[in-house]
Amino acid sequence: MTQADAHPFHLLLGTCDYPEHVPQDRPPVYARMQRDLGLSFVRLAEFAWSRLEPLPGTFEWGWLDDAVEAYHAEGLRVVLCTPTPTPPAWLIRAHPEILAFDDQGRVREFGSRRHYDFASPVFREHSRRITRAIAERYGQHPAVAGWQTDNEFGCHATSRSYGGASAARFPEWLRAKYGTLDALNAAWGNVFWSMEYTDWEQVRPPILTVTEVNPSHVLDYNRFASDMIREFQAEQVELLRELSPGRFVTHNFMIFESGFDHYDVARGLDFVTWDNYPTGMLELFAPPGIGEDLRTRFARTGHPDLVGFNHDLYRGLLSGGERLGRDGAGTPNGPWVMEQQCGQVNWAPYNPMPASGAVALWTAQAWAHGADVVSYFRWRAATMAQEVMHSGLLRHDETPDRGFAEVAALDQTAFPVGPVPARVALLHDYESLWIYDQQPHAQGLNYWTQTVTYYMALRRLGIDVDVIHADADLSGYAVVVAPAITLVSAGRAARWTDAVNAGAQLVCGPRTAFRTPGGETWPDGQFGPLSELVGARLLQYDSLRPTLRQTVSGADDLSGTFGASTWAESYRLNGAQALAHYQGGPLDGQAAVIRRGNVTVIGAHSDTLIGAVLEGVLGAAGVPVLPVPEGVRVSRRAGQLLVQNWNPEAVDWNGITLPPVSFVVRPDDAGQPLEGEQDA
Amino acid sequence: MTQADAHPFHLLLGTCDYPEHVPQDRPPVYARMQRDLGLSFVRLAEFAWSRLEPLPGTFEWGWLDDAVEAYHAEGLRVVLCTPTPTPPAWLIRAHPEILAFDDQGRVREFGSRRHYDFASPVFREHSRRITRAIAERYGQHPAVAGWQTDNEFGCHATSRSYGGASAARFPEWLRAKYGTLDALNAAWGNVFWSMEYTDWEQVRPPILTVTEVNPSHVLDYNRFASDMIREFQAEQVELLRELSPGRFVTHNFMIFESGFDHYDVARGLDFVTWDNYPTGMLELFAPPGIGEDLRTRFARTGHPDLVGFNHDLYRGLLSGGERLGRDGAGTPNGPWVMEQQCGQVNWAPYNPMPASGAVALWTAQAWAHGADVVSYFRWRAATMAQEVMHSGLLRHDETPDRGFAEVAALDQTAFPVGPVPARVALLHDYESLWIYDQQPHAQGLNYWTQTVTYYMALRRLGIDVDVIHADADLSGYAVVVAPAITLVSAGRAARWTDAVNAGAQLVCGPRTAFRTPGGETWPDGQFGPLSELVGARLLQYDSLRPTLRQTVSGADDLSGTFGASTWAESYRLNGAQALAHYQGGPLDGQAAVIRRGNVTVIGAHSDTLIGAVLEGVLGAAGVPVLPVPEGVRVSRRAGQLLVQNWNPEAVDWNGITLPPVSFVVRPDDAGQPLEGEQDA
Amino acid sequence: MTQADAHPFHLLLGTCDYPEHVPQDRPPVYARMQRDLGLSFVRLAEFAWSRLEPLPGTFEWGWLDDAVEAYHAEGLRVVLCTPTPTPPAWLIRAHPEILAFDDQGRVREFGSRRHYDFASPVFREHSRRITRAIAERYGQHPAVAGWQTDNEFGCHATSRSYGGASAARFPEWLRAKYGTLDALNAAWGNVFWSMEYTDWEQVRPPILTVTEVNPSHVLDYNRFASDMIREFQAEQVELLRELSPGRFVTHNFMIFESGFDHYDVARGLDFVTWDNYPTGMLELFAPPGIGEDLRTRFARTGHPDLVGFNHDLYRGLLSGGERLGRDGAGTPNGPWVMEQQCGQVNWAPYNPMPASGAVALWTAQAWAHGADVVSYFRWRAATMAQEVMHSGLLRHDETPDRGFAEVAALDQTAFPVGPVPARVALLHDYESLWIYDQQPHAQGLNYWTQTVTYYMALRRLGIDVDVIHADADLSGYAVVVAPAITLVSAGRAARWTDAVNAGAQLVCGPRTAFRTPGGETWPDGQFGPLSELVGARLLQYDSLRPTLRQTVSGADDLSGTFGASTWAESYRLNGAQALAHYQGGPLDGQAAVIRRGNVTVIGAHSDTLIGAVLEGVLGAAGVPVLPVPEGVRVSRRAGQLLVQNWNPEAVDWNGITLPPVSFVVRPDDAGQPLEGEQDA
Ligand SMILES: [Zn+2]
Ligand SMILES: [Zn+2]
Ligand SMILES: [Zn+2]
Repeated sequence: MTQADAHPFHLLLGTCDYPEHVPQDRPPVYARMQRDLGLSFVRLAEFAWSRLEPLPGTFEWGWLDDAVEAYHAEGLRVVLCTPTPTPPAWLIRAHPEILAFDDQGRVREFGSRRHYDFASPVFREHSRRITRAIAERYGQHPAVAGWQTDNEFGCHATSRSYGGASAARFPEWLRAKYGTLDALNAAWGNVFWSMEYTDWEQVRPPILTVTEVNPSHVLDYNRFASDMIREFQAEQVELLRELSPGRFVTHNFMIFESGFDHYDVARGLDFVTWDNYPTGMLELFAPPGIGEDLRTRFARTGHPDLVGFNHDLYRGLLSGGERLGRDGAGTPNGPWVMEQQCGQVNWAPYNPMPASGAVALWTAQAWAHGADVVSYFRWRAATMAQEVMHSGLLRHDETPDRGFAEVAALDQTAFPVGPVPARVALLHDYESLWIYDQQPHAQGLNYWTQTVTYYMALRRLGIDVDVIHADADLSGYAVVVAPAITLVSAGRAARWTDAVNAGAQLVCGPRTAFRTPGGETWPDGQFGPLSELVGARLLQYDSLRPTLRQTVSGADDLSGTFGASTWAESYRLNGAQALAHYQGGPLDGQAAVIRRGNVTVIGAHSDTLIGAVLEGVLGAAGVPVLPVPEGVRVSRRAGQLLVQNWNPEAVDWNGITLPPVSFVVRPDDAGQPLEGEQDA
Repeated sequence: MTQADAHPFHLLLGTCDYPEHVPQDRPPVYARMQRDLGLSFVRLAEFAWSRLEPLPGTFEWGWLDDAVEAYHAEGLRVVLCTPTPTPPAWLIRAHPEILAFDDQGRVREFGSRRHYDFASPVFREHSRRITRAIAERYGQHPAVAGWQTDNEFGCHATSRSYGGASAARFPEWLRAKYGTLDALNAAWGNVFWSMEYTDWEQVRPPILTVTEVNPSHVLDYNRFASDMIREFQAEQVELLRELSPGRFVTHNFMIFESGFDHYDVARGLDFVTWDNYPTGMLELFAPPGIGEDLRTRFARTGHPDLVGFNHDLYRGLLSGGERLGRDGAGTPNGPWVMEQQCGQVNWAPYNPMPASGAVALWTAQAWAHGADVVSYFRWRAATMAQEVMHSGLLRHDETPDRGFAEVAALDQTAFPVGPVPARVALLHDYESLWIYDQQPHAQGLNYWTQTVTYYMALRRLGIDVDVIHADADLSGYAVVVAPAITLVSAGRAARWTDAVNAGAQLVCGPRTAFRTPGGETWPDGQFGPLSELVGARLLQYDSLRPTLRQTVSGADDLSGTFGASTWAESYRLNGAQALAHYQGGPLDGQAAVIRRGNVTVIGAHSDTLIGAVLEGVLGAAGVPVLPVPEGVRVSRRAGQLLVQNWNPEAVDWNGITLPPVSFVVRPDDAGQPLEGEQDA
Repeated sequence: MTQADAHPFHLLLGTCDYPEHVPQDRPPVYARMQRDLGLSFVRLAEFAWSRLEPLPGTFEWGWLDDAVEAYHAEGLRVVLCTPTPTPPAWLIRAHPEILAFDDQGRVREFGSRRHYDFASPVFREHSRRITRAIAERYGQHPAVAGWQTDNEFGCHATSRSYGGASAARFPEWLRAKYGTLDALNAAWGNVFWSMEYTDWEQVRPPILTVTEVNPSHVLDYNRFASDMIREFQAEQVELLRELSPGRFVTHNFMIFESGFDHYDVARGLDFVTWDNYPTGMLELFAPPGIGEDLRTRFARTGHPDLVGFNHDLYRGLLSGGERLGRDGAGTPNGPWVMEQQCGQVNWAPYNPMPASGAVALWTAQAWAHGADVVSYFRWRAATMAQEVMHSGLLRHDETPDRGFAEVAALDQTAFPVGPVPARVALLHDYESLWIYDQQPHAQGLNYWTQTVTYYMALRRLGIDVDVIHADADLSGYAVVVAPAITLVSAGRAARWTDAVNAGAQLVCGPRTAFRTPGGETWPDGQFGPLSELVGARLLQYDSLRPTLRQTVSGADDLSGTFGASTWAESYRLNGAQALAHYQGGPLDGQAAVIRRGNVTVIGAHSDTLIGAVLEGVLGAAGVPVLPVPEGVRVSRRAGQLLVQNWNPEAVDWNGITLPPVSFVVRPDDAGQPLEGEQDA
C-alpha cells in the first residue's frame, strides 16, 4: 500500500526530480528521503529526450527504468512526461524547419528549451514518435500514476511562431475558417487600408508591418496559434490514452500565460495543473498596476490575490470532475500544483528568499483554492546549467534547505479535499484578452489588471470566487462579474441574459461588448447585443494619462466620491438609471455607473468604486461578505475556513492572532459568522 | 451654386469620408448631413486602391462614381487622392522589391500602410499607372476641386528606406552629385577612419555600422531620401496637371515630420495642407523638453504653441499665393488643415477626450494662422480595422459626437481670410535639423526643442511669426531669428548679412554656423563665414547633464541672472560686445550673449534668457510686444485679433473674461493696443 | 639629443596626431608646437590603412614618410600602429566574410571602425600583410620608438562575433579543448535541457535562444572569443619583433573593457597602455551603482576611484618590467596612458567641459598610479567625420584649447618614475566577471560594482592597491582582497591557502568560490575547494530588490549596525566564527561576516560594512591607513605622495589647503605620517 493510498481524502504532496542530472546511486537515496518527508508523487523526465533517445532511433531506457523502480520501491507514484519541450540537437540540426520564429522575424535558436513551432509537421511526427515510445515503455508500469504533456506551453513567449511552419499553415487555417477570400476580407475589414487579399498565400503572420497591424488579423493569428497547440497536444493525448489506460493525462500551465486559449487546450485532459511561483510571479508576471508598495510588502511571499487568482483560474479550466479516488488507487483528480516554489527562484529581475513560513502558507492556500496535490519544484538544486541559482528542497550539497523543513512540519490531514463553495463567478475569455490588450488606447490599460482589480475587490470582501469562461454555465451563481469581456457575441449576450433572468446579478466593467467576435466594433456601437439588457449605449470614452484623474460621485445607494484613473466611459441611458456621475472634466455630469434591474455597469477604473459597487451587489444577491485587512485573506474548502496572513507582521483580527506569514484552518461554520462578517 | 461659393471670403470647412467603408446607401445620407452641417469639401479615396483596382488591371469605378455624384448632388466639392499610400496585396506579393527596409535592415511588411520604397522603379511605374487611371476618370468631373497626392509622406518613419531599391539607387545619386570618388571621399572626410571608397557600389545605407556612422554619410543619405520623395510626387503631379486642368494639387504633411526636406517636396504644389492632431501631437510628437506639467495642463487641448508652430511652419513652405478665388470657383488657395482632430485619437500613448470647446478653438486658431479650409478627420468613426478607437464627427452608431456639435455651432463668417501680418521671421532648415540631431553632444539636445523654445518665447510676447526657410527672402522682416541653423554656407551667410545691412535684427542661437554644407566643421571653427558679421569666434562649449546648470549674468541692457541648462557656449570677441557672462563653472567670466550692431547671439539654453533678449531686440526693431499669460495666446489675421484661452480654467485678461478653452475674435486695431501692449 | 632623452627619469608626455587629416604643410608646424609644449612622443596611423594602401597591393608611403621625418626633425619619437581597426572598403567589399556579427545575429556593417571578426582567416592574412608592409617600411627608422597593435580591442562590443568566421571556428576550438563530445556535454551539463550535442558542427554561438542560454556555453564562447583576439595580436607581434628589433610593442586597452581576458592578450607585449577618458568613463562606463550624486559631483573630473582603478588594473596586467631606459634611449617601459582626455569628449550621453585643472590632475594621477608616459588625445580637434565634437589640444582653428595651457604649465620633473608601493592586492579575473554577470540573480548586481566597491573602500582609507590576477603571485602582499572571485578552481584555492599560510590576510566577498571553472556550482556547494580555509559553508542567499534592505549587526571587534542592499548571504560555520549577523528578515540571526584565522568573508553588499571590516583587517596586517574625505585621494610613487582634490570646492585637510580640482606632490615620509594617519 502506497503513501498515497494511506490518506486518500486529504491533500497529497510531491516533487519534481531529475535522476538524469545526478549519479545513478542517488535516486534510491532521494526516494527514501522523499518518502520520509511524506511525499506521494514524483514527476520525471520532461526534459530528458536526449537521454531517452541519444541518437536518432536509438533509445536508452536503462537509467529511467532504474529510477522508476527506485521511486516505486519507496511507494512513490510517478508522473511521467512527454519530453517534447526539449527536442535534441540531432533532431533540430537535421530538421531546422522545426524552429520557431519570434515576433521580429528571427529564428529562435537551439540552446535552451521550447525551441519548436507547434505547427511543424516534422516536429509533430517526432512528437508522436517519442510519445509512443515512452508510453509503450512505461504506460502500464504500476508506479506510473499519470502523464504530463510537454511542459508549460507558451512559456518564454512560445505560443506563437511568426514564420516557418506557422506561416505556411496559417493560410490553410484561414481557408478552412472562411471558405472564400471575400469572407476573409469582409471579416477583417481589409478594405480599410486596401489590405484586401486576392490569394490565400498572400496572408502572412502579423509582424513587421510599417505601422499597427489590423487587429482582426492579429486576433485570428492568435486563434490559429492556439489551435496549433491544441492539435499538438491532442496527438499526444490520443497516444497516451491508447497506451497507458487508467492513467491520468494533464498539463502544467504557466502563471498568467496569455498566448493561447487555455479552455480549448485543457479540453481532453483529466484535470489541470499549474506551476506556482509566488515571488517570481510578483516580480515578473504581475499585471501593470501592481505598484512598488505591494511589490515590496509582498516581496517574500508573493501577493495573495495574484496567486489566488491563478489557482481559481486554473481550477476553472475544467470542472465537474470528482475529486480523489477516481481509479480506486487514490489518484487525485486535480487540480494540482505541479511545480510549487519552495525557495528562491532564479528567473525574475529580483529573486528574494521567501519569508519563513511562506512555503507552508503557499501549500495551505493551494489546498484551500482546490488543489488536491502540491508538488515542489525541485527536489535538489541543480548543480549545472541555466538553473543553478534556483533552489530546491535540498541544497546543492544535498542538505535540506529551508523549504524542506516547512514541508516536513505540515500536517497533511489538516487539509481535507472537497469542493470550493463559490457563489460568485468571475468571467474570463482569452479572445477578449487579446483584443483588449492589442488596442489599449491608454498605455497601462490591461485586461489582466482590469480583471484582477475586480478579483481583489472580491477577495477583500472575503468572497470565494470561481474564475470561469465567459460562455460557461452560469447556473448556481448568485453574482456574475465580467470585468473586461470586451468581445461579446449575440450568443454570449443571450446566455448572460438568461442568467440575469434566472436571478443572477451581473456586473460589467468598461468596454464590455465593445467588440464583435471578428474584432470589429458593433455597428451600433457599445453595448451591441447587450444594449437591451444593459439599458444604455456608450456616450463617451476617455483614456487618462497618469497625471489626469476623474472624479466619480455616487448617488442614492452608492454614496461617496471616488477617484478614477486610466479609463472613464459614460453612457446614454435607455432604461438604466445612473448610480454615479462624473464630476468635472469633459465627462462632467455624465453617467459613470448604471443599473437596470440586476445588471450593473461600472464605467471607470477605481478600486474603491468597484469595491463599493460590488459590496452593494453582493448584498442584493444575498452573499455574505467578510471584509479582511490588507494581506489577510480567507478561503473556504470542504467545510473548512483557511485564514491567512501574508503580511510580514503579525495581525490581530477577529479574535485571532496571526503571526507573520502564517495561517490557521478552522471549521467554516456558516451559521456562526466571524466577527465582522455581514449578513446578506 | 455651391456652399463653397456662397461665402468665398471666409474660412470653409470639410471632412474626410470613406464611402468604401460603409454600405452603398450611406454616402447620400452622409452628404446631406454634411451639407446641413455647413461643410464645403469632402476628401476621398486616399487608401482605396484595392477597391479601385481589385485585380491587376481590373478597375471598378462604380462605387466611387456613385459616391462622387452623391456628394456633388449636395453641393460638396470633392478632393480626390492618389491611393498610393496603400498598394494592394496583389501588387506587393508580385513585386516584393517594392517594400522598404527599416533602419535595422529588415523588410517592412505588407499589412498596414506606407509599405513602399520611394526609390522603387517598379512602384514608380504603378504609381504613375494608378494616378493616370484615377485622373483620367475624375480629372475633369465638375465636383472635383483638386487632388491630394498620396497621404502623409514620411509618417511611421517611412521617409527613408535602408535597403532594397533605395540602397540600389544611392550610389547613382552620389555619382550624379559628386562626379568622382575623390570628390565624395573628400566631401565626407572619409579619410577619418579609412572609410574611403574605391567604387561607387561600395557605398551602402548608413545603418548597422559598428559604431557611429560618418555624419556626412548620413546627411547625404537624408538628402537622397528626400530627393526620392520629391521625384515620386513630381511624377504624380505632372500627370494630374495634364489630366485634371484647373484643379489644385496639394499634399497633407504631417506634424513635426522631419524625414525629408519639405521645401523641396512642396515646390510644384498649389498650396500646402497638413494634418492637425493637437492632443496626439502633445503626447507623441512633442519635442523633448515639453515636461509633464505642460503635458498635463494641455492634455485635452494640445499645447497652443506646438500647434501654432506647425501652422506657421506649413504656411511658410510655399508663399505668395493669392488666397481664395483662384479659379473663380471659390477654391481656397490654402494652406488647409486637411485632417483636423475632432474627438479623441487612437495612436498616442494616451488619447484623452478633448476638452469641451477644443474643436472650435482648434478651428479658430487654424484660421488665424492662415488656413483657408479646415477639414475634419473623419466623418464617421470606423467600425473595422486599425482605427476603431479613433473618433469622427459621427460615432460608430452614426449619432453626432461632441465635435459635430462644436462644428455646427461655428459661425464661419467670423473668420475672414487674408494675410497673417508677421514682422518676425523664424528660420528653419531640414539639413540643419538632420546634422544637429545626429550629433547632439548632450542627450536631450534637439533641433525642434531649440527652435520651438524661441518660438514660444515670441508667442509669449504676443508676436506673430512666419517660419521660413533659412535661405528665404528676408526682405520686409524687422526681426530674423535663427535658433538652430547650424549649417551655414557662404551663400547663406551672405544673404543674412544683406538682411542685417538692410536693417533687420538678427538673433542666432548656439551652434549657429558650426557646420559646413558637407556636414564638417568650418576649418576656422564656428562661426565660419558668419564670423565677421557676428564679430566673434567660439571659445568653449559645454554640454550639461540634467543635474548640472549654468548661471548667466546680464550686463547693461540685459539685467538679471538666468539659469541655463543642456548647452552653454562662450565666445572670443572680435568686434562684438558681451551682453551677458557665465558665472561659475568652467566657463566662468566668459561671454554668453554677444552683440555686434544688429546681430545678437545667445550661447546658452534658457527660456528666460531667450525671452529677455528677444524682448530687447523686438523693442530695438520697433515691433510692439503684447505679453500674454500662460495658455493665453493672440494671433492676427486679416485685420482681426484672435484671443485664445487654452487653459482648463477661465482667465481674466486685459478686460476680457475668457472661459476655459475658448476664444474671441475682435478687430485688430493696431492703433489702439490692448492693455499691456507695449509700444515699440 | 631628444627631448625624451633629456629627463629620462620622470614622466614624459605625448600626443596622438593625424597627419592624414590635414594639409601636408601642417605636420612640420605641429611638430614644432609639440616640441615647444614639451611633448616627447607622437602616435600615428592607427586608422590610416586606406591612405597607406589605397588600392589592393598599391602602397603610398609618401605622406607618412614626410610626417615621420617632420616629427623626427623636432626630436619627437614616433609610436606607429598597425592600421587594422579600419580595414578599407575595397577589402571589405571583396571579402564580406571579414565582417563580424552582433548578438542579434546581424552583420555589423562597414562605415565606422572595428568592423572585423578576429577569427576570420581572410582578415588574418590581410592583417599580417599590412603589418609586414608597415613594419618593413618603418621598423628600423630611428624616430620609431615602438608600436601599438591595432586600437582599443573590444571597443564598441567588438570582442565577440556571433556568426560568420567565429561561428565557423568555434566547434574546432571546442574540439581542441575537449577532445570528445561526451567531455563537452559533461562539462557544460548539457543533459539539463537535452542540450547534448552529437556532432561538433551542431554547436553555435550562444545567441537568440528561446530563453536563457547555458552559462557554461556562454563562458566557453567568451573564452574562445578572447583566444581569437590573443591569436590575432600574436601574429602581428611576431612580425613586429622580426621587422622592428629593439622597439617596444604595446596595445592601448579600453576603460573597463570586459569582453576578453586582458591578461592573456597582454602576455607578449612589452608593456600595457590604456586610454583614459575620465568624464566619458563616469557617464558611459561607470558600473551600476554609481549614483546621480556622484555623477554630478564628479561630472567635470570623472570619479577619482574609477580612474584610479583602471590605472591600477592596467598596470597589473604585466608586471616586473624595469622602468625607463630599457634600450638606452630613454624609452619608458610603461605603463602608459596612450590616449588621455584633454577637453570634452563626444561619445558619452553628456560630455561636459572638464573643470579647470582637470587635465593637470589627470596627468598627475596617472603618474602616481604608475604611468611613465601620458599621451593626449588628440593634437587638433578633427574637422571632419564622427569626432568633430571631440576636443584636442588645439581647437578646430588651430588655436590652443584649455587643455593645452594646462599641459604647458606642468613641470614634468615633479613626477619621478619608480615603483608604486602597494601592500594590498585586489584580485581580478575575467572568467569570474563573465560568469558573475551572466547570472546576477538580482538586477543591478555586477562584478565591476562589487569589485570597485571594495577598491573605493580601500582608497577612502588612503591605501595604494595593486589590482592583479586571481592566480598571480601573492608573495609580498600583507592583505589580499577577493571581492567577486566566484570562479575558484582547486589550484586557485591552493594558491590562496599558501598565501594565507604565509601570513597574508585574505578578505572575500559574497559568491566567492560558488562556481567551478566549468561554470557549474561545486557539487558540495559554496565554498567548494575553499571550504576548509574559510571554515564555513553557504547557508542561504538572498537577492534584494531596491526597496528591500537587510540589517547587519556586528559583534566584538566589529561594532555597529550596517545597512545592506542587493545581496545578502549567510553561512553555516564549521571552524569560522561570526563577526556579524543579520537582523530581521528571513536571514535573521544568521552569520553575515565570518572569520577563521586570517580569512574573512563578507556576505552582504554594504559600503560601510566593507569599510569597517577592511579597516580591521588592515590593522591586523600592519598596514597603516590614512582616511581621506570625499573627493580627496592620496597615491604614492617613487617616494612621493600625491594628494589630490577632485572636488569642485577647495578642501582643508591635514594642514593642507587644496584648491578645487588640484594636487600637491610631497615626499612620502612614511616615518612621519600626516595628521590623521593611523599607526598599524
Ligand atoms: Zn517550470
Ligand atoms: Zn492621417
Ligand atoms: Zn580612442
